[in-house]
Parts: sequence; C-alpha cells; structure tokens
Amino acid sequence: MTSVPAADTSPAASLLPKYEAVRQFTQKLCEPLETEDYVIQSMPDASPIRWHLAHTTWFFETFVLKPFAKHFQPSNPAFEYLFNSYYNGIGEQFPRAKRGLLTRPTVAKVFEYRRAVDRKIETLLVEASNDQADEISTLVELGLHHEQQHQELMLTDLKHMLAQNPLFPAYHSGKEVFANDSANDLAWHTTDGGIYQIGHSNDQFAYDNETPRHDVLLHDFQLADRLTTNGEYLEFIEAGGYQRPEFWLSLGWNTIQNDQWDSPLYWLKRDGTWFEFTLAGLQPLEPTAPVTHVSYFEADAYARWRGNRLPLETEWEVASESLPLGGNFVESGYLHPTPAQSGEGLKQMFGDAWEWTASPYTAYPGYKPVEGAIGEYNGKFMCNQQVLRGGSCATSASHIRRTYRNFFPADARWQFTGIRLAR
Amino acid sequence: MTSVPAADTSPAASLLPKYEAVRQFTQKLCEPLETEDYVIQSMPDASPIRWHLAHTTWFFETFVLKPFAKHFQPSNPAFEYLFNSYYNGIGEQFPRAKRGLLTRPTVAKVFEYRRAVDRKIETLLVEASNDQADEISTLVELGLHHEQQHQELMLTDLKHMLAQNPLFPAYHSGKEVFANDSANDLAWHTTDGGIYQIGHSNDQFAYDNETPRHDVLLHDFQLADRLTTNGEYLEFIEAGGYQRPEFWLSLGWNTIQNDQWDSPLYWLKRDGTWFEFTLAGLQPLEPTAPVTHVSYFEADAYARWRGNRLPLETEWEVASESLPLGGNFVESGYLHPTPAQSGEGLKQMFGDAWEWTASPYTAYPGYKPVEGAIGEYNGKFMCNQQVLRGGSCATSASHIRRTYRNFFPADARWQFTGIRLAR
Amino acid sequence: MTSVPAADTSPAASLLPKYEAVRQFTQKLCEPLETEDYVIQSMPDASPIRWHLAHTTWFFETFVLKPFAKHFQPSNPAFEYLFNSYYNGIGEQFPRAKRGLLTRPTVAKVFEYRRAVDRKIETLLVEASNDQADEISTLVELGLHHEQQHQELMLTDLKHMLAQNPLFPAYHSGKEVFANDSANDLAWHTTDGGIYQIGHSNDQFAYDNETPRHDVLLHDFQLADRLTTNGEYLEFIEAGGYQRPEFWLSLGWNTIQNDQWDSPLYWLKRDGTWFEFTLAGLQPLEPTAPVTHVSYFEADAYARWRGNRLPLETEWEVASESLPLGGNFVESGYLHPTPAQSGEGLKQMFGDAWEWTASPYTAYPGYKPVEGAIGEYNGKFMCNQQVLRGGSCATSASHIRRTYRNFFPADARWQFTGIRLAR
Amino acid sequence: MTSVPAADTSPAASLLPKYEAVRQFTQKLCEPLETEDYVIQSMPDASPIRWHLAHTTWFFETFVLKPFAKHFQPSNPAFEYLFNSYYNGIGEQFPRAKRGLLTRPTVAKVFEYRRAVDRKIETLLVEASNDQADEISTLVELGLHHEQQHQELMLTDLKHMLAQNPLFPAYHSGKEVFANDSANDLAWHTTDGGIYQIGHSNDQFAYDNETPRHDVLLHDFQLADRLTTNGEYLEFIEAGGYQRPEFWLSLGWNTIQNDQWDSPLYWLKRDGTWFEFTLAGLQPLEPTAPVTHVSYFEADAYARWRGNRLPLETEWEVASESLPLGGNFVESGYLHPTPAQSGEGLKQMFGDAWEWTASPYTAYPGYKPVEGAIGEYNGKFMCNQQVLRGGSCATSASHIRRTYRNFFPADARWQFTGIRLAR
Repeated sequence: MTSVPAADTSPAASLLPKYEAVRQFTQKLCEPLETEDYVIQSMPDASPIRWHLAHTTWFFETFVLKPFAKHFQPSNPAFEYLFNSYYNGIGEQFPRAKRGLLTRPTVAKVFEYRRAVDRKIETLLVEASNDQADEISTLVELGLHHEQQHQELMLTDLKHMLAQNPLFPAYHSGKEVFANDSANDLAWHTTDGGIYQIGHSNDQFAYDNETPRHDVLLHDFQLADRLTTNGEYLEFIEAGGYQRPEFWLSLGWNTIQNDQWDSPLYWLKRDGTWFEFTLAGLQPLEPTAPVTHVSYFEADAYARWRGNRLPLETEWEVASESLPLGGNFVESGYLHPTPAQSGEGLKQMFGDAWEWTASPYTAYPGYKPVEGAIGEYNGKFMCNQQVLRGGSCATSASHIRRTYRNFFPADARWQFTGIRLAR
Repeated sequence: MTSVPAADTSPAASLLPKYEAVRQFTQKLCEPLETEDYVIQSMPDASPIRWHLAHTTWFFETFVLKPFAKHFQPSNPAFEYLFNSYYNGIGEQFPRAKRGLLTRPTVAKVFEYRRAVDRKIETLLVEASNDQADEISTLVELGLHHEQQHQELMLTDLKHMLAQNPLFPAYHSGKEVFANDSANDLAWHTTDGGIYQIGHSNDQFAYDNETPRHDVLLHDFQLADRLTTNGEYLEFIEAGGYQRPEFWLSLGWNTIQNDQWDSPLYWLKRDGTWFEFTLAGLQPLEPTAPVTHVSYFEADAYARWRGNRLPLETEWEVASESLPLGGNFVESGYLHPTPAQSGEGLKQMFGDAWEWTASPYTAYPGYKPVEGAIGEYNGKFMCNQQVLRGGSCATSASHIRRTYRNFFPADARWQFTGIRLAR
Repeated sequence: MTSVPAADTSPAASLLPKYEAVRQFTQKLCEPLETEDYVIQSMPDASPIRWHLAHTTWFFETFVLKPFAKHFQPSNPAFEYLFNSYYNGIGEQFPRAKRGLLTRPTVAKVFEYRRAVDRKIETLLVEASNDQADEISTLVELGLHHEQQHQELMLTDLKHMLAQNPLFPAYHSGKEVFANDSANDLAWHTTDGGIYQIGHSNDQFAYDNETPRHDVLLHDFQLADRLTTNGEYLEFIEAGGYQRPEFWLSLGWNTIQNDQWDSPLYWLKRDGTWFEFTLAGLQPLEPTAPVTHVSYFEADAYARWRGNRLPLETEWEVASESLPLGGNFVESGYLHPTPAQSGEGLKQMFGDAWEWTASPYTAYPGYKPVEGAIGEYNGKFMCNQQVLRGGSCATSASHIRRTYRNFFPADARWQFTGIRLAR
Repeated sequence: MTSVPAADTSPAASLLPKYEAVRQFTQKLCEPLETEDYVIQSMPDASPIRWHLAHTTWFFETFVLKPFAKHFQPSNPAFEYLFNSYYNGIGEQFPRAKRGLLTRPTVAKVFEYRRAVDRKIETLLVEASNDQADEISTLVELGLHHEQQHQELMLTDLKHMLAQNPLFPAYHSGKEVFANDSANDLAWHTTDGGIYQIGHSNDQFAYDNETPRHDVLLHDFQLADRLTTNGEYLEFIEAGGYQRPEFWLSLGWNTIQNDQWDSPLYWLKRDGTWFEFTLAGLQPLEPTAPVTHVSYFEADAYARWRGNRLPLETEWEVASESLPLGGNFVESGYLHPTPAQSGEGLKQMFGDAWEWTASPYTAYPGYKPVEGAIGEYNGKFMCNQQVLRGGSCATSASHIRRTYRNFFPADARWQFTGIRLAR
C-alpha cells in the first residue's frame, strides 16, 4: 500500500497518511489480544472489540462509500443492521445490550472487512472529483475522529472486561512510573472574571457540539494546578467519605448505597493494602498518581469534603488557553495516569484523566446539529450527562482540543476519569 | 383559635395569620376526600395524602419545635423515622417506596397530630423571645412554603392515584372553562441580548437555590406569547411525532419506546375521540387549553418539530420581569390549565402549567446551601433535573416568585407541566 | 333479615342459615378494622380487605345470580372487571398487582354491594324452582367455601400488612396461651404400608381437586405426633441452619441468600431476645408453640437437619383417617398456633398450622375439572406448588376436610404454615 | 497415549477405553467451532463451551484426582473457584450468570488443562491399588456420565447462541431427512393397570435419583405410539391455541403473555412460511418431524387441546420395558429429531426428543443422596422441575437408560424437548 499521492491525485488524497495512521493504530491496539478477547461485552455500556472494529469500518462504508463511491455495493447487507450503533436515520439497530452474543462474522472476517473498506476509501480519496473532495474529506476526517474515540473505548471496555476475571489478566506489561515526591503540594491558579470567548472557531476539525464560538461571562475563579492524587482521595475514604451523606448529591448517595461502592472502580483492598487493577494487571496503589475511574458523584463529593467544588467547563476552557496541548496521552504507552511533574503553573490539563466538570452537557447558544443521520453524533445526548475536559492516557494526542467536550452520565466510572478542584 | 396577637406578643406572632391560612388550606384540600383516598401510594414518586399531612407537620416539629419549644417532647418518637422524607442529617427514613403500606397512625390520628403541633407552634410564635423571633420566623416561613409545595403534590399525587381507577372518579365537580377562539394565533415576544441580573435579592422569603443574584449574559431571543395548546400538540401527534426519532433526545426516544408513550399522561382515545383525565373526571380534550402532563422529552421534541426550542431559565426570568404575578393558580379553583386570554404581550407566564426550560438544574455562581439538615432542601438534587418556571394551576399564588426554580427529572409527567416555545 | 324458610320455599332455602353465617363471619372479621386497613395491598400475593369483600360477593353475583336470577342486572358493570380474580373464562381482569391502587368503590359502597347481593341470593334460595335448586345449591355452597378461603386470606393479608408498620399495630387483643411443658417430648406414630384409598367420595361438598377417590400404594412410615415447636426450630437456627447449604434445596438456598432470610417470617430479634409478630402485636417467642410462617424450603431443610423428612400428602391423609376433625381453628379466637396438648396419639393434625407435605400439587388419576369458568378454580394451578394439609388457626372448622388439599409455592410464608416431621 | 492395559494394571484400567472415547467425543463436538464460539454465554441458563470443557475436567480433578492421585497438585488453584458449577460442599463458585465474561484461561489453555488431567486420570486408572479401584471406577464413571450430559448441553447451548445471530450461522451441514407420509396416523398403545416396579436395580451405572427400585400402582393407560409432529402442533397454533387461556396452566398463560410466545422456540415465520432454526441453519419446517423446543407449558396445553394428557413418568417407564434402547441419538449425526418410522408399536421412545411427563421431579420412596459434595448431583434440585424421559437427538446412546430421569423447569425450551400424548 502506498501513501504517496501521484501528481494527478485528488486534493482529498492528502488525508491518506492520516487515514492509514489512525486505522493502523486501531490494529496496533489489538496486537496483545487473544481471539477470545474480541468477543465479550462485559456490561451494556461496553462493546466487544470485534464490534468496535466493525462499527468504525461501517461508519466509513455508510457515510462515505455509500454516497460517494462509484458502483457502491455493501460488503454485506446485514452489516448495516449489525454494526449501526445508534443512527436512527440509517435504520434499525441490533440491540446494544446483545452485541456480546454474536460470534459471526468472526474476528478474521471483521479484519477482512476492514481491509476491504480501507482499499475502497483509499481509492476514493485518490480519485475523488474536485467537486466532492471537500465533502469527502470532511466526512473521512469525522470518521477518523470517530475511530479515535472508539480506540479509547476499546481500551476502557477491555479493561472492564479483564477486571471481571479473578485472574486479573494484564493487557500489556506496563511502563515504570516514578512517584513524584512533590505531588502533595497543591497550588491554586487564578483567573479573573470577565467576558471571554469559548468554543471552536478556526477551520480545523471539530465536533458540532463545540460550536458556535460565543461570549461567556465568568466570575473570578481558581483551579487546582494538578489532578487530585490517589493519596489525597484515600484521605477522603479514611475520613468516612462514603458513609457521610452530607457530602453527596442525592442521586450519588443512592448510587453508592445500591451499588455498594466504597472506593473507585478497580480499587481492591487485600490484607489491609490497597491495589488498583490497571491494564498492566493488579498493582499496588501509587499515592502520587492521579485518582482515576471515579464517577461524577465521587468527584463532586470529594470536592465538597475538601470545601471546594468542581470547575465549570467554561472556566476550564478559558484557563487552558495559554497551555500547550501536551500530556500523557495514549502514545506515551503508560495507559494509566502518571504523577504530576513538579513546577509552576497548571499541570495535567491535557491527558492523564478526563476531568469531570460541574457543567451539564447542553447546547451552546445558536448550536445547530449537522443535517441528516450524521447529525445524530452529539446533539441527541444533551440530557443527564456531565461534560468532561482534557483527554486521558487513553486518548490520542491528535484527537484532543481545548474546546473538546466529552460527556458521560454522572455514575460512569469505566473511563479514565479524574478530579481537578476549583474554588 | 384567635389570630390577633396581644400587645405583649413576640414579633414572630405576625406570622400567625399566614401560618393559620396555609395550614387550613391543606385541610381544605382534603374536604372532598374519602378516608380511603388518604392511604394509597400509586407510584414511588407519589406519596399518600396521609403522609403529606404528617410530613409537613413533622417538618415544623423537627425544625422549629425541637430546637426552640420549651420542654419539648416529641409527639411520638416513631414519627421522626416514619415522616422524615429525605433529611439524612435528621436520621434514617422509612423507605419512600413503602409509604403506602402503612395504615397507622390513622388519618384521624394524623389530624390530631396536626392540631397538636399547630397549638404548639402558635404558642411559640406568640411567646418567642426577641432573640429567637427572627430565626423562628425564618424557619416557620420555610415550613409554610414547604407545606405549599406539598399542597401542590397532594393534588398531583391524588390525580395520579384516581387515574389508576377505571371508574375515573372525580376529585371535584370542576368549573366551566370557556374556549378561546384566538388561542391559535401564537405571537413572539422579543428580548434583546445583554448583561442582566437574575436571582433573588430582596429580604422577602426565597429558597437558597434562587441565590445569589448575579449577572448573566444573554443573546437576543424570542418567547412564544402563550403556552402551547392541546390542539397544537395534537398536530404533533398526528404528524407521527412519537414515531419519528429525529425529534427526540436519545433518552427520550428510549423512554417513549420502553414505556409505550404516544400522548401526554392522562390522555385517552375512545372511539376516535380524545379525552383527558382531570381532577373533575374524564373530560373531552379542549383544543384551546394548554397541553399539560408532558415530560421534558416531549416538550423538547415538540419544540424541535416546530423548528423552535425551549427557553433557558435565564431568558424566562428576564422576560418575566415586567409582568405582574397573576395567573390561574390553585385559588382560582379550576385545578386545570385554562385557555389564554386574548391581547398583547406575554400571557400565562405564571400559573396554568410549569414551563419546562432547556436549563439543567445547577448551582448559581457562589451558591451556598444553608448549614445543617435544613440545607438538604435544594442543593443535593442538582443532578439530572431540568428547571421549570412560573407555577401551575395547583400552585398557591402566595408561593410563587419570578425567581422561583422548580425542578423535576426529564421523564416526570404527573405534575402540571407545559410548553412555552422559544427561538 | 329472616332465616326461617316458609312452608312453600325451595329446597335450596335450607342453605340460608349457612349462607348467612358465613357471610356474617366475614363482616365479623372486619370489626376491629379502621377504614384505612381495607385499602392497602402490602405485596402482590396479598389483596386489600376491600377487594376480598367485593370479590367474594362478585363470585355469587357472577356464578349464581347472573345465570339464575330473574331479570338479572349487574350491580355495576365495572365490577365484573374490577373484582374478577383470575377467571379468564369470565373476561379480562384488573391487574392483580394493582388492587391496592383503588379507593373506589369505597368500603361503605362495598358493604352496600354485599348487602344488595345478599338480598338477591337469599331471595333466589327461597324462590328457586325445584329444577334449579340443586345446581344453585351446589354453586352457593362453592361460593361459601370460596368465601371461607378468603376469610383466611383476609387474616393473613392483614397480618402481612400490619407487619410492615414499625409501630406493630395489633389486630386483636389476643387470648392467653399456656405453655405446655411436655411439648419437647416428640413421639412417632406408625402406619403400615399397603394399598389405601384417598380422596373425596361421599356426597358432601368437596373441591374437584380432591377427586376421584383412588387407590394409593404406601410404604411403612412414621409421623411425628405433633408439630415442630418454636424451641425446636430455634435449635436449627442456632446450629447455623441458615448458613449451611447441605440442608437446603438449591432453589431454597438461592431464596434465603437473595432475600436474606435467617428466621421465619415475623420473627424479630431485639437485644438478644426473640419476638414474633402476631395478630395480637409483637410478642415474646413462645418456645412450646408450633413454629409458623415458614416456607417449604425451611420446612424441608429443618427436616433434613433432623435426619427426617416431610410427609407425603397420601401418608398424611391415611394417618388422619382415625382422628376427629377438631383443633385450634379460627373459631377458637387465638388466631395463632397454640402448644400441643399432652397425651397419646397424633395431635394438631387439624388446625394450628397448615402442614407442608413433600408432595407437589398434581392431578389425581382420572381428575377432571368442572366445565366452564368455574373449572378454573383448582386445576390450572397444578404446577410449582406444594400441597399443605390440615388447616390452621385461621381456617374455619366447617371448611376443613381430611381430603382437603391446600397448595402454595415453595417460598410462600405469609400463611400460617408449619412443620410435621415424617420418617 | 495407549489404551491397552498391561498385565499388571489395575482392574480400574478397564475403564480406559470408555474414558478416552467420551473425552474425545467432547473434542469432536468442538471441531466445527471457531475460537469465538467458545466464549459466549447467551443466557444465564446456558454456559460458554469453554466453560463446559473446563468444568467437566474440573469434575475429574476435584472428585477423582484430589482424593486419590499421589502427590496431587491442583492444575491452577483458581480453577476450583472458576469451574465449580454448584457444589457448595467444595466451596464458593464464580457466579453462574458471569461465566461469559471471562476470556482467560484461553481456549488453548483449557484444552491443555484437559490433556493434563487426562494424562493423570489415565495414570491413576492404570496404577490404582486394588483397594481403591472400585471407588475410583465409580467416580470416573460418574464423571463420564456427567461429561455426556455436558456434551448435550454444549449442543443446546451452542444452538441457543447461534440463534441470537441474525445471520443464522450453521454448526454443521446437516444430513438429509426424509419425510414420512404415514406420520399423521397416530395410534394408541395400551398398558393395563396393576402393581409394577420402576427404578434402577442392577449393578450397572445409574444416578442416585433412579433408586431405589420400588413398587408403583398404575391405572390402565394408553400412550401415543409416536411423538407429536410439527404438523400436528401447527394445527394447535392455527386453532388459536396461544390465545385461548382455557388450555393453559396459570403459570403457563402468564409466561406466554409476558414472553410473547406464539410458537416453539426457534420457529420463525417469514412471508407466510414457517422456518425452524436448526444446527444446520434456518430450514423450512418439516411437518412430519417431531415438534421440539417446547416448554412443559406448551406440551401440557397441546395435550389438553387434543383432549388428552401427558404421561406420568411411571407410565412411561413401565411402557418402555419391552423396547430396545435404540433411536436417533447424537451418534446418528442428524442433531435434530427425525420423522417416525412406520410400523406397529411404540416408536421414538428413545432419542429424537426428551418427553415431558406430568410428573414433578421428586424423591423415590427411600431415596438417599450420596454422602458429601458429590451428593449434590441430583437431590437438591427436587423442587419446581418436571421429569423428562427417553433422551434426544443430542444424547449419547451409551448415556441413556429406561430408568433415566432428566428434569427441567416448566418453562425451559432450549433443550430438545417434545411431546408424547397419553390418555
């Protein structure tokens, strides 16, 4: 496969290297897997790896090849039903909670499906007419960002599935992380109130929910200069945090009672010592690393116990303006949040762990979803979700933006979610 | 019982007339009831009337008499457990979903309990020392507003319970409502963008969630001059609104599928004609009256189908500033929304039906709940609820404020909820 | 109302005294009740008293008046739907689990309904033609036995409802019971194997499930001469019976795990002392009284722990042949099992507590249900039920027979059920 | 691996050929499978193939190697927890409903585990001391029968899993079955009443629940000479059988309402034509083949609609006495019931489909389970199960006996279950 476009290729062909890189990275993530690992759905919110591989491919087939490819033939008419996630505009969907009941097409066939679609997309990118090149490029780029989201979900869904196994199998061997002795010295970073702008404006790719850029009115605020650590969170547990209703939202208190939560997901106490299940297997809890796999309820209760609060998403975005986009992303290979570096200024704003904000996920003023089925991407989820910001150790560096709005329900814990205090 | 304070009475005694009026109104609402009607809980969200009567009394006993009355003795030590709703700071609560399993204390005993507490509160108001008069007055006033909220819930819980009965028993005989021929001419009311203030500031009573008053930044917007009517909503139904996923939030679509909703709660089609269960029994649907008993999901889908949206709570409050506080409240005796009057300007902003806003219920900047158990009143519910504004035909005129923030989950339908469009 | 038939009355009129006695006893059971007590359904298996009163009346109206009364008019057409329990042959039924959501017709109206039907039945019994007298008598007699079953259910449903209340209200003041010091000397009563007959044969009333009388083959067996006592059952608890899976049926073990059972229903340990909720309120556990409110699972596990087993229903019936039909029935007024008398021979075979047998409830060889809707009385429940024998302290003396087959699912505990060992 | 015992081998070594044959047949059943097919659990009642392979091996390791092998070392200490099904006497079990959440040990490792245990069992059989040879042989034989039961479950669990897939993948290519034109002429086979013996007596292997052999008293009865066909069952469907409550047990009627059953499991109507999912994929329904995958509820309702009933297990066993043990078992390779042969006498008593009997599963008189954990095999399931007789097209010929008592709950449909009428 060549990625060097010839002289007479379409302008769309400039996307080829990115297309290949993203698609190959999905397969790279699969390298440590056994065939068995592709099939299982460990909870309704998660999906089998097999499904992620097929669904991301279906996305390109349905939204790019079907409208634009010459002599389009579906790879398999059943795939439209089997691998549609939630696009009602496309048609009915195989029930989400039953994705883990299927063994066919097999993993090998799914990889064939990926290759067949890749060849067709590559041909289309090279041969697209000048008329269509823009529209195709936009959709392919959307498809690549979509795939990067699923790469992150593959890691978190896998982690959840492996964690069900009392043998605690590891996904990778892990990279050594050094504790940071200065992690306990939390400092506050101040921003003055005033009218600011947030949201996406330039001509780079962004999701529709980041637009339009608009004025917001902020009051003076301070953000913690780094994420909350395991050690700090342990103090909350040891202070009886999970037994004291005064710190909890009413729904949160119900949740921890009903689901008997007494620590973050994947924490485990054995013979008086705390361990944490990571993608490198069961590990002793590192006190200086950021706490992760907490729900919004836990993040909010922790903040309240400290006498602080969580940031608004507007505050977070404004405060992030001056910072470079670097951090502990998936490319670093840790696949786990790492302790903050010492030094001045805001740290860990990008990467490590998604930061729960106090902002429910709603439409920006003047927001309009894209027309058609592809417009179901973001807008229809604007209810009972909290915004998270900044990306995590499972996010691609090329996927994140300052204006990026991730969202999950308040009780979700299986993503790499963390806590930054505000006041 | 006299409500004229003598010369040497406490300043707190000025609350006596209001105390007596509110408490007596609760009992007036019970006049049409049979003993059987006090006992049943028709769904976990609702409570038996018997419980409402006791719980509102428990509130005064617990938050006023216990700390302030001389030689305080609890009426019955078990009541603290039986009639606590959700105040974790007070102690454990009898399970909410089991409130309808109790027959003792009987209704007669509950009325005795009310009388006994009334006598003690009245004594306390008359005899309160000057030191304590302020604090006592504040708590009693909170208790009265609390009771007014429960008066509204008594009507909506009763309505839900009576609606379960295939005999469709009426609560009252109803008052005739005249249709308004001009109801279909919806007009738009414009407000310019800019910095405004919202929230409570003066020294009148308000809940903590209405504070502090603060600046907000608004963009230009328009509100419909009246509520959406049954006739307009019927057009949505007849256009297949409940079968077309493109208008619905994802959670909303799931809800109408799972619960098989195809019209507002209490609507019933018999032999091709639409009826609506009201507190006056089953009635033919009045096309010019406001649609009510819709969820946020339905309000949002309807607005989307019309190419509009729902108002933000900030927009609603700013637009309401110039209007008097009148409307079809519980005192009018209709106990159902009535058609809008003709004429210019915003109509039905107060009374008739609570208006779903597009705003999730969150804390105002700088919001601090009250200290102690009484602080569990509002703040702990700030998750997965939508704000509603303006009061309904079941709200007391003396209970509502421009700044009043009601809140319910997006799928709640048993309150008198309605739709005002915005754009 | 007169119960003395005149000279020219129908032969059916001889049922009048029994009709009046049974119907009046239902109302006598209601004397201690408050109006509130009639309305509540404390679990799906139980029904509100209000419903029992109406349903037993509906039975006479539907199966006797409708086919036989001159100029029959239904009391209220809605009652056919509201008060049908499970007779599919009659029509649709108001959902069983929602019986506790209705307040109308009120209790007063239900009593009026009873009186109206009583008058019509009495007239019919007096005026029935000779042709129809037999058929009417058979149906009325069935209706009276049906009502006696509901009298027992009224007591057990009431007890379950009162037990939900942390105030533990009493239904009656109770009669003193004297402990029996000799209760611990359990003896065994032997019956030789052979061919016996069981089942109903004479021309007295019996349910269809007791027929036909038929030969059975028994092996030698022994029955305990009295019921298992609370004291004996406590030994099982104290020996860790509820924590040792080896004594339990698989379904039983699942049940006690899931529902967290560790003692009979209504047992309560306070400060190290065992109490039992009775219809006379919370009482200290009497060690010599029979254990009651145990499931089949518990009865079976207890027997296994003792190295014994439960009787077959055939064994029970054969052993009962020589005994008079007396015992602690509802007429004794205890409304609770009482300690066994001392003396030789089988004791407590009738009354006190229904005795779980090891026999699943199945059809006797050649069993045929009655034709029509009334045939739904017994046969359609012959799946996943265990047979119980002998009646209880809540059964009418005139209701029980040696051949009487009661049946409940293996996990039912709210009836007065007890244990007799066999080996 | 050699299966020829040398001169000085233990008497236990005579089991070697059978051991190897049964264990290899398990693996033969796996030949058509993809790795993905081993992992999934499509409902709580089913188990992943991976789990069946490991659990049957665990059985030999736990009940044979652990007590008898020299220098016993567990293959992996975690397996005792992971692969115990329900033996409380052995210890805690990994939750049944979560068996499909595990991917490790992988399928390859499970096959290694099988081989390792096979080697040790083979060694033990050859080297067992004369003292222990008997006890070891008994346990190994139990283990082989246990494995044969799991072979049948592997096929039915696989079928259920494949049926979830809208692609309807086939397990095997199928063998052609010829319709039998005389299938509709059902004849009746008569047996006279009297005292007979049933149950296991000789020194061949049998489960404990088949003992002791004992006298039973039968009345005259007739059995249909063959199984009910698809064509006959279709008449029941077309006569509105699933819409007429008068044919159904009460629990059965609830089940078909709640689960919306209107035909046997795996039947599918497409464009007016009936199809049936088989292990050879989706096939047109063969009217002369036996109906299969019906619940007890459906079998009972069908029999009632025909004016007949289902056989008692005692009747079935007595009538089977004169017949040879042949039939359409797993070895025939059809893996589906086939039409009855023409000719006189009882047909299809063995093989094709398990026959629901009217007998609840209970203990024979004098039944005693084996001591210890292995005694949990049968006795603890004697509640809410119906007995089935005769084996199916998925049963091994060497596994079945006349006295064999299979049992499933009344609503189970995923086994090859069928209907034989009686009267």
